[in-house]
Amino acid sequence: MPSEFSLTRQVEFHETDMAGIMHFANFFRWMETCETAFYRSLGLPLISFVPGKVVGWPRVNVSCAYRAPLRFNDTVVVKLFVKKLTTRSVTYVFQFRKDGALCATGEVTAVCVTGDAGSGMVAQPIPADVRAQLQEASEAAWS
Amino acid sequence: MPSEFSLTRQVEFHETDMAGIMHFANFFRWMETCETAFYRSLGLPLISFVPGKVVGWPRVNVSCAYRAPLRFNDTVVVKLFVKKLTTRSVTYVFQFRKDGALCATGEVTAVCVTGDAGSGMVAQPIPADVRAQLQEASEAAWS
Amino acid sequence: MPSEFSLTRQVEFHETDMAGIMHFANFFRWMETCETAFYRSLGLPLISFVPGKVVGWPRVNVSCAYRAPLRFNDTVVVKLFVKKLTTRSVTYVFQFRKDGALCATGEVTAVCVTGDAGSGMVAQPIPADVRAQLQEASEAAWS
Amino acid sequence: MPSEFSLTRQVEFHETDMAGIMHFANFFRWMETCETAFYRSLGLPLISFVPGKVVGWPRVNVSCAYRAPLRFNDTVVVKLFVKKLTTRSVTYVFQFRKDGALCATGEVTAVCVTGDAGSGMVAQPIPADVRAQLQEASEAAWS
Repeated sequence: MPSEFSLTRQVEFHETDMAGIMHFANFFRWMETCETAFYRSLGLPLISFVPGKVVGWPRVNVSCAYRAPLRFNDTVVVKLFVKKLTTRSVTYVFQFRKDGALCATGEVTAVCVTGDAGSGMVAQPIPADVRAQLQEASEAAWS
Repeated sequence: MPSEFSLTRQVEFHETDMAGIMHFANFFRWMETCETAFYRSLGLPLISFVPGKVVGWPRVNVSCAYRAPLRFNDTVVVKLFVKKLTTRSVTYVFQFRKDGALCATGEVTAVCVTGDAGSGMVAQPIPADVRAQLQEASEAAWS
Repeated sequence: MPSEFSLTRQVEFHETDMAGIMHFANFFRWMETCETAFYRSLGLPLISFVPGKVVGWPRVNVSCAYRAPLRFNDTVVVKLFVKKLTTRSVTYVFQFRKDGALCATGEVTAVCVTGDAGSGMVAQPIPADVRAQLQEASEAAWS
Repeated sequence: MPSEFSLTRQVEFHETDMAGIMHFANFFRWMETCETAFYRSLGLPLISFVPGKVVGWPRVNVSCAYRAPLRFNDTVVVKLFVKKLTTRSVTYVFQFRKDGALCATGEVTAVCVTGDAGSGMVAQPIPADVRAQLQEASEAAWS
């Protein structure tokens, strides 16, 4: 898998909670930040705006399994894999590793939508060029 | 299900993102806040400290399915159900409703642990009195 | 000061940090949530959208002085005072009290702006009706 | 000023709000993350734990002045300056720059404390070795 699909970061103080570990909800923020970096590596925007419209990827299903806690200042590698592509959606799997050990595994399914001010969001087919890049990334990830 | 198992709150400005909706990770914070209120209703602490030790409920598996977005100032009812009890863990289901309509469904499995400063967290059987209350709540929820 | 100018809430688990207290940045979120409730009590929106435009109150100066920490589940009263009104801005003072004791004092100056998609935000005079209500609230607060 | 005193990062999606800009409270998180990196560059921990005790730097006064908004994916340089040292406290100034332009200026005063489980936090003189390093950093910053 190309190196652009992984993100390395350290747990920040505000991300911890009184139990002394990274708050479980913050893993989902990290997944999205990894997804953003992945999109950037492909030259794609995660969200784009045209007058009166927004094109984005709202999440429809997300999950995370936690094996070991992350603590303040821990250096963590987050890896993204494209697990599944459908006409309108993409499913990512994320792995969180500290010193090589798997600490958490996440999954996010996002749907491509166009939204406008009045009527909310409507799912739409993933644009062909975006789809081609996601497909290629998917194959690279698992080969 | 007794009314104490539900929590009503409004989406705060800082909980929205640039797509104009509540950020998906914040649903997990709300689940935990609902769980905290549920514990409070039972007279139980969500986390407790004794010198050198902490007794808490780290999450091992969480998920959320999103059906409709929540927006700034929306009034939302979060309902908690005890879905499953094992010797060391509890699984909750959460429903997010706006004007009665289901917007999201979440699930959280937490394990009862004792932690100490040196050696990390160790799973332990749920104390009998806590277990009895969770069991009772579980039966009330589904009856 | 009318009771609508105060907000009572409890510190949530995710708002704490590994030092066991509410993270200092979260006090600013609470100030804004109190401001939102204040606006709601006046029948005013904190932010409004018209096609292609947003009318809002970005912050230009904020500060907070901390005297005593807030902890998980603490019940806290946040009081809002309108300190100063100018043509384009309003300055609020916030007091955080636990069991009557002052724990923190904050200040926020926000400017009334109109923003549009292309050219960013432009300060504008506070609309007359909004100004009248803020003025009245200000006088009530200090009388 | 040595390069270790600055931090470069990009605005993440979850850090934005429905106005399309980085939420104002998040600037304080970035200041703390910059402070953490500064401490790391000095070989010092931002917070340390000994059995039954925590040594840390709770904030007593913080402020931020905002000049220009930050948006999703903006690359921002945060610079830290040690402004003032007293026996028990340190005051930092932070500058946020995008493409060289100053977008915000922050200030944080933190007090050195020892806390224990029973009796809360007590201010204490900054340890001599830490003080020496902060002093040196301060002089370097302004020379």
